[in-house]
Amino acid sequence: MEFKDIVQNRFATKFFDTKPIPQQKIDELLDLIRLAPSSFNIQPWKIKVITDHATKEKLAPFSWNQPQITTCSHLLVFCANTDIMHNILKLEKMLDPQAQGYVDMMKGFAQSLSHEQAKSWAQRQVYLALANAINGAKYLGFDSCPMEGFNAEEYSKILHLPSNLVPTALCPIGYAADVARPKIRFTKEDIFF
Amino acid sequence: MEFKDIVQNRFATKFFDTKPIPQQKIDELLDLIRLAPSSFNIQPWKIKVITDHATKEKLAPFSWNQPQITTCSHLLVFCANTDIMHNILKLEKMLDPQAQGYVDMMKGFAQSLSHEQAKSWAQRQVYLALANAINGAKYLGFDSCPMEGFNAEEYSKILHLPSNLVPTALCPIGYAADVARPKIRFTKEDIFF
Repeated sequence: MEFKDIVQNRFATKFFDTKPIPQQKIDELLDLIRLAPSSFNIQPWKIKVITDHATKEKLAPFSWNQPQITTCSHLLVFCANTDIMHNILKLEKMLDPQAQGYVDMMKGFAQSLSHEQAKSWAQRQVYLALANAINGAKYLGFDSCPMEGFNAEEYSKILHLPSNLVPTALCPIGYAADVARPKIRFTKEDIFF
Repeated sequence: MEFKDIVQNRFATKFFDTKPIPQQKIDELLDLIRLAPSSFNIQPWKIKVITDHATKEKLAPFSWNQPQITTCSHLLVFCANTDIMHNILKLEKMLDPQAQGYVDMMKGFAQSLSHEQAKSWAQRQVYLALANAINGAKYLGFDSCPMEGFNAEEYSKILHLPSNLVPTALCPIGYAADVARPKIRFTKEDIFF
């Protein structure tokens, strides 16, 4: 499927048919997510992958009981990682020593942010990874539903997340049991100027 | 080009060769951006498209003089639109009257946000549109460079932006005059849990 067709045909699936996605397809999707770009390549994200039905059932009431949570094959919980410096130090070990100037620039950037700014910044990056999940799902032959309507604090508790991980968006994936409605978008003239 | 190859082959281009992208390709890219998903489908973004060299030259010093700004074919300035209610009222006119419950939910959401929260929320959505620009460019046969390193206030002044539009990310596009370096990413085990 061409990228143009992916973009036109993906839709926010409201009901999945509970059929599991084969592991090989999941592995391909996770690679597409992992390769997403991020500012400075800091990759300030971690993604919890949930297949266990009991956990989905626990999370459902904190997601407005939306049926995607319990009918999906895999529930991806996209978390922003606010411990930016930790990621920079990991990157420093992976980069050529000649990149030290770049590493120092990243460190300066991280130190310049308040906790709230670091959280907002990391959350923005998460949406680049989320976009690859959404488009990647359609490319690999299944469906997805990006969701923000959930209680992040309760998710953190149920999933025992450390305090540096902030649940930011959900992306249940699976095979749609509903059909796409026509896309409604503002006109080109309205968006571009 | 398959989506997998797009994701693997796109890279943050540091130098473009100044050759203009044909208008037809630009139109296709803008459609891919326009079709991006957003929370509630509120599409809280506007994108300034700059081809004029004099404007690029004015913006360059406020973008750390990075050569992408002046060597690209088109400079896309992705702005978050903090006037969320305005978009909801536009959507209300486009939606079926039966969707009134949904419209009221959107209005309640918009009213629940402080100005700062509305800005952060809108900025997050912008990255979904930005992702389509990045992947779309490679799909259409050219290159891009997502950038956050610029002075948003000076951009607003130079571009005479109204106060509800917050420049959030740049995406210069064009034909790369450099080559991709190997992708460095954290391992699957490090990202997914």
